[in-house]
Amino acid sequence: MFSGDSAIGFCAVLAIILFSTKFLGILFRHFGLPQVLGYIIAGILIGPAIFGDLCGGAIIGFSDGGYFTLISLSRENALSVFSKVGVLLLMFSAGLETNLEEIKRTGLAAVLVALSGVAVPLVLGFLISLPFGNIGLGTANIYRCIFIGTILTATSVAITISVLKELGKVNTRLGTTIVSAAIIDDVIGIVLLSVVTGIAKSGAAEAENAFEAFKMTIYGTIIMIIAFFVFALLAGWGISKCFKWLDKRWPATHRIPIFSIAVCFAYSFIAEEIFGVADITGAFLAGAVLSTDHRASEYTDKKVEVSTYTIFAPVFFADIGISSISFAGMNPAILLFAFLAVLMGLIGKVIGCGAVFKAFKYNLRESAIGGVGMMARGEVALIVTSTVTSSALGANALSSEFMIMTVLLILLSSILTPVMLKVLYGKEKPPENNDGGEVEAVREPASAEAVSE
Amino acid sequence: MFSGDSAIGFCAVLAIILFSTKFLGILFRHFGLPQVLGYIIAGILIGPAIFGDLCGGAIIGFSDGGYFTLISLSRENALSVFSKVGVLLLMFSAGLETNLEEIKRTGLAAVLVALSGVAVPLVLGFLISLPFGNIGLGTANIYRCIFIGTILTATSVAITISVLKELGKVNTRLGTTIVSAAIIDDVIGIVLLSVVTGIAKSGAAEAENAFEAFKMTIYGTIIMIIAFFVFALLAGWGISKCFKWLDKRWPATHRIPIFSIAVCFAYSFIAEEIFGVADITGAFLAGAVLSTDHRASEYTDKKVEVSTYTIFAPVFFADIGISSISFAGMNPAILLFAFLAVLMGLIGKVIGCGAVFKAFKYNLRESAIGGVGMMARGEVALIVTSTVTSSALGANALSSEFMIMTVLLILLSSILTPVMLKVLYGKEKPPENNDGGEVEAVREPASAEAVSE
Repeated sequence: MFSGDSAIGFCAVLAIILFSTKFLGILFRHFGLPQVLGYIIAGILIGPAIFGDLCGGAIIGFSDGGYFTLISLSRENALSVFSKVGVLLLMFSAGLETNLEEIKRTGLAAVLVALSGVAVPLVLGFLISLPFGNIGLGTANIYRCIFIGTILTATSVAITISVLKELGKVNTRLGTTIVSAAIIDDVIGIVLLSVVTGIAKSGAAEAENAFEAFKMTIYGTIIMIIAFFVFALLAGWGISKCFKWLDKRWPATHRIPIFSIAVCFAYSFIAEEIFGVADITGAFLAGAVLSTDHRASEYTDKKVEVSTYTIFAPVFFADIGISSISFAGMNPAILLFAFLAVLMGLIGKVIGCGAVFKAFKYNLRESAIGGVGMMARGEVALIVTSTVTSSALGANALSSEFMIMTVLLILLSSILTPVMLKVLYGKEKPPENNDGGEVEAVREPASAEAVSE
Repeated sequence: MFSGDSAIGFCAVLAIILFSTKFLGILFRHFGLPQVLGYIIAGILIGPAIFGDLCGGAIIGFSDGGYFTLISLSRENALSVFSKVGVLLLMFSAGLETNLEEIKRTGLAAVLVALSGVAVPLVLGFLISLPFGNIGLGTANIYRCIFIGTILTATSVAITISVLKELGKVNTRLGTTIVSAAIIDDVIGIVLLSVVTGIAKSGAAEAENAFEAFKMTIYGTIIMIIAFFVFALLAGWGISKCFKWLDKRWPATHRIPIFSIAVCFAYSFIAEEIFGVADITGAFLAGAVLSTDHRASEYTDKKVEVSTYTIFAPVFFADIGISSISFAGMNPAILLFAFLAVLMGLIGKVIGCGAVFKAFKYNLRESAIGGVGMMARGEVALIVTSTVTSSALGANALSSEFMIMTVLLILLSSILTPVMLKVLYGKEKPPENNDGGEVEAVREPASAEAVSE
């Protein structure tokens, strides 16, 4: 009926997305579920997945979809740009919240919890994928199986923190270790993702010149990843110096956030287009190198989060529902696989992290709390999934049907984590300063706040 | 070299725009000029206007431009969407800052100052345009001549306020009248723009059906404008009620800003696509109807401004330099015309507003201060220009060469206003509380703050 490809038509798309995501986000939050799930469901409901393909009429659909649409978009549309800006700002924000001193303080335990919590789900996810070659994973395509494992690695402790806060346990040694481990988890995850997507890209496309050909060898990929990290740190050191000088001369002015956002986009572009590393790695590293100046980075993070949660993040998550989720290619085999993979993801975190807590002399109950606390997943899992389903990976990319696995992972882990934590803590008597179970809004290290209220 | 049409390529465009606009913005501000001019110059420098067309190589250019580009965009690109979102958010913010009670308080004087300050430049601009039919205004095309007049009507008192503040004169009766008149000026300007663009649209395109045909008659246009205002106020009354209830239950949560931005986009779309009224009218009215709830609108305005000044407004102003300004079609006749029209714009405000101040028993020097204080122009003049050069007006649209007139208008008025104000006030002795001429950041009613630091 209307075209969403004109600038003003796209504003109608934005209006519908913002209204529906926030509405369902509030509803989901009311039932103790993460808002991002509400955002994705909103995208599914306004998009073509259910009402377009099955009922013949979508609110927002694609002009080549063959169904009635209120607002139709062509396949190449501004949604992908807003969505990309959203995911980069989310990762940038996560990077800005990387506090190296905090990590140093909690020390070895947090590092090992994070490492083991990445390794075990990665291996379990990989192993469960191997027998499912016939559902689009490809028996011979080892990369797609690794991607499934990689999707299972990213922890999001937003829910854990609010439960710990409610129980008055957030400032215990166990609580701070969980928070630190979750931050380190992001760093390990981003390095892992860079390496696996970098290698998967090798040979997925034709090389245009000798430099492109070099980047496509596995050897070249690893060299380029290291080169990008070195570049990012060196350039970041210089940029950080400039910003410290700027911040000293004109504290808390808008120039630092604006220049910082420019650095985020520049790093993302350079990572992807020059070094062949995933753009979200660039955005995360931009945030991490700027996080060394705490005052400026905290101020910048606040400004970035406003743009993120008011416009870009809702569009990113809704776009997953609109563009990536389709029930047309769905079949029982994929659903069975998704369920098993999610199970591996949950068990993997509990065992992987719990075992390290046990090794650090926590008792069995505390170790279980630590493992369950690291089990919840959030938007980073979605970001990783959208990266490994992207076309840049060519023939090795995971097909978007597997997005349903990530949605299921977030849904189940979000329901199970608070229930299990409360059961595990239930054996203790509640602390004196518990004010009746009112969940406070808390600062969450992995940028989840950007999408919550 | 790189394509700016992919999502990640566009992020490079954003990085370059944000860095260059902020850099030149700071430089311009250092010399006492408005930042928006710096933003536009940044757009001209990184775009094809000078280095592409004249030197053969642009940083950001168009793929059909025939010059070397670092990042090339196709003519239909995401820049237009970001730019549109930017202009809508700027007008929404201006609407949110419309304080009806403040206007009631300053009363008749401010209303008449605003009315006369709109009418005189409008008439002078129209008259000066008539003999210039051969430079693209079209002798027979009365609309383009009216557009020139309309561009000259929008006051921006950001510079005036900072000078008054510096001289300790902002809270005088004269000062508050200027501030109120500038707000009313926006409201009158938006009604005027709706009517003239509405009528200019009549018959500019083929009618698809009877309803479209009705909207294209002059009679139909006026009915639709009135209908939109009635719709906007009625719907706004309901929305405002909902928001007041939301704000009472959950004060200062992000849901109100997000729903408000959705309302802004929805109003803009409905104005343009259903009622045939300019989209910026919709955005402004959305802000105005929500401004009745002061607490919520102030909170919303803060959040909207963060997104606006960190990303969208720099893109809007840079896009004027990149996409709208070209020196290829420039000739001495246009430059002469631009200069004369700007002169009319400046004289028109000084006389139009000054005369009303005089009629309200201010002495001659004070009336001159009032007139000069209303003389400065800013981003609203750019927004009006970009609206009347848009393709929606079909054959009646003003060609983009006239953007140079608006840039000149802002440049000259920004240089002259502070100089003349200081000369006029120079005859008085400085007030006791003058703290040495340090210009403070001040809240400016017409959303200029959104693009300043």
